[in-house]
Amino acid sequence: MNPPEQSFRVVGTRPVRPDGADKVTGRALYGTDFALAGMLHGAVLRSPHAHARIRGIDASRALALPGVKAVVTGADFPEAASVAIAGESAANLRDIARNVMARDKALYEGHAVAAVAATSPAIARAALALIAVDYEVLPHATSIAAAIAPDAPLLHDDLFTPGLKPRPETPSNLALHVAIDTGDAAAALAGAAAVAGGHYTTQPVHQGYIEPHACVAQWNADGQAQIWASSQGAFMIRSLVAGALGLKQADIRVTPLEIGGGFGGKTTVYLEPVALQLARQAGRPVRLEMSRSEVFRATGPAPGAVIDIRLGADKDGMLVGAEMTFHYTAGAFPGAAAHPAALLALAGYKVPNRKITGWEVVCNLPSSAAYRAPGAPQVAFAVESCLDELALQLGIDPIELRLKNAVGPGDTGPMGLPHGQIGLIECLEAARAHPHYSAPLAPGETRGVAAGGWANYGGPSTAAVALAEDGSVLVTTGSPDIGGSRAAMAMMAAETLGVPYETVRVTIADTASIGFSFLTGGSRTTFATGHAVIAAANQVIATARARAAQIWGVAADTVAWRDGAAHGTAGDSAGKVLTLAEIAGKAANAGGPISAEVGVNPAGWLPGFGVHICDCALDAETGQVKVTRYTAIQDVGRAIHPAYVEGQLQGGAAQGIGWALNEAYVYGADGRMENPGFLDYRVPVASDLPMIDTVLVDKPNPDHPYGVKGVGETPIVPPLAAVANAVSRAAGRRQRHLPMSPEQVLLGGDA
Amino acid sequence: MNPPEQSFRVVGTRPVRPDGADKVTGRALYGTDFALAGMLHGAVLRSPHAHARIRGIDASRALALPGVKAVVTGADFPEAASVAIAGESAANLRDIARNVMARDKALYEGHAVAAVAATSPAIARAALALIAVDYEVLPHATSIAAAIAPDAPLLHDDLFTPGLKPRPETPSNLALHVAIDTGDAAAALAGAAAVAGGHYTTQPVHQGYIEPHACVAQWNADGQAQIWASSQGAFMIRSLVAGALGLKQADIRVTPLEIGGGFGGKTTVYLEPVALQLARQAGRPVRLEMSRSEVFRATGPAPGAVIDIRLGADKDGMLVGAEMTFHYTAGAFPGAAAHPAALLALAGYKVPNRKITGWEVVCNLPSSAAYRAPGAPQVAFAVESCLDELALQLGIDPIELRLKNAVGPGDTGPMGLPHGQIGLIECLEAARAHPHYSAPLAPGETRGVAAGGWANYGGPSTAAVALAEDGSVLVTTGSPDIGGSRAAMAMMAAETLGVPYETVRVTIADTASIGFSFLTGGSRTTFATGHAVIAAANQVIATARARAAQIWGVAADTVAWRDGAAHGTAGDSAGKVLTLAEIAGKAANAGGPISAEVGVNPAGWLPGFGVHICDCALDAETGQVKVTRYTAIQDVGRAIHPAYVEGQLQGGAAQGIGWALNEAYVYGADGRMENPGFLDYRVPVASDLPMIDTVLVDKPNPDHPYGVKGVGETPIVPPLAAVANAVSRAAGRRQRHLPMSPEQVLLGGDA
Repeated sequence: MNPPEQSFRVVGTRPVRPDGADKVTGRALYGTDFALAGMLHGAVLRSPHAHARIRGIDASRALALPGVKAVVTGADFPEAASVAIAGESAANLRDIARNVMARDKALYEGHAVAAVAATSPAIARAALALIAVDYEVLPHATSIAAAIAPDAPLLHDDLFTPGLKPRPETPSNLALHVAIDTGDAAAALAGAAAVAGGHYTTQPVHQGYIEPHACVAQWNADGQAQIWASSQGAFMIRSLVAGALGLKQADIRVTPLEIGGGFGGKTTVYLEPVALQLARQAGRPVRLEMSRSEVFRATGPAPGAVIDIRLGADKDGMLVGAEMTFHYTAGAFPGAAAHPAALLALAGYKVPNRKITGWEVVCNLPSSAAYRAPGAPQVAFAVESCLDELALQLGIDPIELRLKNAVGPGDTGPMGLPHGQIGLIECLEAARAHPHYSAPLAPGETRGVAAGGWANYGGPSTAAVALAEDGSVLVTTGSPDIGGSRAAMAMMAAETLGVPYETVRVTIADTASIGFSFLTGGSRTTFATGHAVIAAANQVIATARARAAQIWGVAADTVAWRDGAAHGTAGDSAGKVLTLAEIAGKAANAGGPISAEVGVNPAGWLPGFGVHICDCALDAETGQVKVTRYTAIQDVGRAIHPAYVEGQLQGGAAQGIGWALNEAYVYGADGRMENPGFLDYRVPVASDLPMIDTVLVDKPNPDHPYGVKGVGETPIVPPLAAVANAVSRAAGRRQRHLPMSPEQVLLGGDA
Repeated sequence: MNPPEQSFRVVGTRPVRPDGADKVTGRALYGTDFALAGMLHGAVLRSPHAHARIRGIDASRALALPGVKAVVTGADFPEAASVAIAGESAANLRDIARNVMARDKALYEGHAVAAVAATSPAIARAALALIAVDYEVLPHATSIAAAIAPDAPLLHDDLFTPGLKPRPETPSNLALHVAIDTGDAAAALAGAAAVAGGHYTTQPVHQGYIEPHACVAQWNADGQAQIWASSQGAFMIRSLVAGALGLKQADIRVTPLEIGGGFGGKTTVYLEPVALQLARQAGRPVRLEMSRSEVFRATGPAPGAVIDIRLGADKDGMLVGAEMTFHYTAGAFPGAAAHPAALLALAGYKVPNRKITGWEVVCNLPSSAAYRAPGAPQVAFAVESCLDELALQLGIDPIELRLKNAVGPGDTGPMGLPHGQIGLIECLEAARAHPHYSAPLAPGETRGVAAGGWANYGGPSTAAVALAEDGSVLVTTGSPDIGGSRAAMAMMAAETLGVPYETVRVTIADTASIGFSFLTGGSRTTFATGHAVIAAANQVIATARARAAQIWGVAADTVAWRDGAAHGTAGDSAGKVLTLAEIAGKAANAGGPISAEVGVNPAGWLPGFGVHICDCALDAETGQVKVTRYTAIQDVGRAIHPAYVEGQLQGGAAQGIGWALNEAYVYGADGRMENPGFLDYRVPVASDLPMIDTVLVDKPNPDHPYGVKGVGETPIVPPLAAVANAVSRAAGRRQRHLPMSPEQVLLGGDA
């Protein structure tokens, strides 16, 4: 337990980020900044068809082109088992292997069907044109409606809807079934004083990370391999590549390069197994990198959704029942977002009767991937829109309505267990008290509010803390730094050891230099890897105390540690002080160098909740929506480096606003994506947005030494509804379809 | 204790080396194989004078040359303290700093006086010619005789012969004084039945590593630095560069590249502080590399020696007394070889009365450095030559004579403590029994024999062992692999864990990814870093047993570990087995990923002794000596990977033969080296040598889990005398001066 009055020297301050100079001077190595002598350049041939059987591939002309050193197709990869791989990075290897390189069928436009390695990018591209693929074009389905129609083209003839009992007799495109049925939702809704609901839709949206995927792979003559890649998890790459190619994990060393954004989209492999197989065949290192078009057409968006919902309340605004059925676009292979979506859809509220049915639908779109709080924004859009309708129907302030129903500590959580120290109520109270909420609206402006949450995660992490001879401190983790974890880790180590932040340096090591860590995702890094750093720092302190005790000839438990130094308390040692630097200077030749490596899988992570307030101005003539003021309020447990946490809230809100107003995959009748670039797939830019205000609600997590809760995913959950609620009021039409493009706002909403 | 009957699965086998494919395919990155984008090329301006005051340096014309981005001179470096630096890599920083870049004086031909970084190597070299150095040329001394003459030019006006009491009134070139005086040597020699002795000389010789020094340094705008370098110790570079430039150690990340030979010559810095200072001023990464000529003229040779010795025995061949005075050429800065030389000169024999006086002499030669068993070969040459003379005088077989006097376990060692389980006697017995020793000699051939030893060292090391999710094993150390330590570490980890060698991979990590390790040198790595690897593997086993116990619901101490698996013994767990891979697969989501990092400073290293037998054929007409058969016998404790250990013995013997017959620095009267290249400084090549036979005497070290003793340095100690004893018998002249060039053999020996 950490009492609220816990005081800190380092935690909560805003020191200069340790990777800043590297990044602003262009020194930091991102995916395509790394090169090896003799490196080849790869290119991937992608299916022009949304659905096609591959009858054969003739690469002979490509192989004959001078400069081409290798061509690989699906036949060059072992058939992977259709099971989750051993160990921790659970994933269906067979699907991943078939996604990185098509075998019998191409399942979406952009699906990789072959790859080339050549002495220059131009030759590699030229070689792609020389590969003859004999396609049998099949009917395709790029929407949920098309994919679940009775005559829908079947993507996988061995897919029998996991989760559905009894197992269906025939395969279908229904890839996952999730059902929650508590109480009697139908009866509760029938007796409700007010019922809101309707048919909601969202489109697939992309994470929009600025850095496209890229990697370099090297295969040595003895079967040892190295991969340099930008991703959310070097260990994830190690296990997936080992699984896809049938290698020992210890034979693959993955070095994490910097990552220019991930947001969940870099939690799986696309290029790495292909690059390594090319390198293996060519006998030279190979770099593969995606263009922006490839990123859009071949990496996983967040699923689009079709949601039918009814939410009922009594006359006082107490929620009595909910019914929801949703379908998510899994894309080419079964996805997993429906699970958290079903669990989290109503997680913020006490709804005694609920019936939730969720489906994942495979269709001829790129296989969906995680995107901040995967699955949650879509259902929150529907639920929080209904709450807004109920507030209007019942004449209750939207925040009051939510406060009446909000869950708090001790209430039952989505997994049936009582919640710990969650902070939804505090966030709603903070929103109600925020000047934004009571600020007068300009003419033409409306205000929307929405809440939302995410389960967060802990998971396994390893960290090491070592002392240099001069007492400066080296922290090593295996968690790629996406949102500032180098700073947070250095701060937690400095806080624990009692030394200045500036004496601590953090390195994100390769997979051969630090024990296993699960990937950076699930809002887990500051929580779980932080746990590991603090535990390793405490082991270092224990060793330092023992060394001081040895020097003073006293028992180690008589040596206190404070302010970065050992303090003697017993006998002659009383009043004696040895600083960490003094102990470090003597360490190696006394008992040995001081360092510690600790692996943890900490329990005690907590869901994060946030409340967003959004003001919009609608141009009634053109239908254009302008967000004029935005405030994101979130329970962050305790912010280690508040500036980074504020950045998470701002970034999530910005992405959510884009999802609400602009972003969508547009597919033609030919099954091809029509907007695979940032000119046509429009993410919000700075001029589209107001400064996003943030409020960090501190409700410390008692199960983390410094009170940390995960913060990265929750901020994308409320914005869809927060914006839609504002626009609905402005347009006089309930906005149930994203994105809220001008024509959608003016014509497509429900009056 | 490890009983002799200890049995092994992995230790003692000869598996394929893990770095072999990398190295034979050219994939391994050595010093000049590493490059960074925007990297500049450096060049060092070196003094043409053996001794000169630097009145001033005008670099303005160099700086004006297009493409030149930085010029540094001694003025760009802070004045370092004349003290050993804090921590473990004890060194006189002031001397090191002045050696890497001259300040007020150039002290030898080749001493760095300025350095340039430019956009190409050609521009950098051109810029050197534009730097105007205003030298006041001073008289110089490149030999001991010249440096200790009454009118000798003084190198350092603040050098008052450490070790000499009382402190001298005036400075001199005598840089270190060591004295051992036990019993009454003069009286013992006066009463001896036989006395051998004379005036012995050896010349400075170079380690002759194939790879010249090279490094790349990068300075970031926020003061964080990275260095990639080929050396015997990345942590050594970190501490010396931090000390020389006044930086925090944690701000410098040193990545060890492969090392193409070191032999002690890469245990200090030459280029790294200069490259980093250039990078700091230029704002871009800088590579510095030495030519072969620079390696010879500016890096440390082993000291040359002048030795006067008398060794006496009674009529039975029992040694009764020894007197020895020796001077070593320290080069430009005080050296440290005289200490071990004095202690080890007679370490192999029980000599009751001994008086040894040693001096280091600074002179206008490159500052001497370590070279395999630093200081020992020179004095062993004299001592073992005297033993050969005594054997001839007394008519006793040379090996019998040594056996009569050899030290064994319990005898007093050089530090006054009783020896542990040393194996000199076993080596002498093995030599006596070896077919080589009794093989008939061809006409014109003679046979020499000599023994020798080295103290060895343990010292601080850190290692980590981590399990991948599939149970393959990653071992991480900070000890550069020079003589095969990757293989030895993998073997010891595999032996300890009970898994196949092939499942273990070893990584030599950078200084930010593993705790401190002292450098690879002092025959310490397999011993000390091996200790750390074994300790870390045992911690992993302890964790794995605890996890198995947790799964089985039993106490951890009831879980046995054998054959790479946990075996239940208690209750229901009896007979149950969980392999390391099974435990690894469950680990992360149970208690956390399994890994361990352990720092040690193990006691219990033991001196190593060896006996060499050498047959020579002397061409009486030309004086050319051909080594026709050679056998190196050594107590290695226990060889982890015997092929590597044999390689150490063969390599040391080859280098010793070169020292004996060919190698020497040749300086002209102008104080300039006349043979700074492998054409004129001739190391033995394959065609010069017979196959060198080896015998590994196994006398396990009870203080190492697998019996390891250091092996790398001892093999260079016996060859000088072994060859000289053979040649002396062939030439009919006692060979007291190295190298035994044809003219020396025919004309220079003592009849």
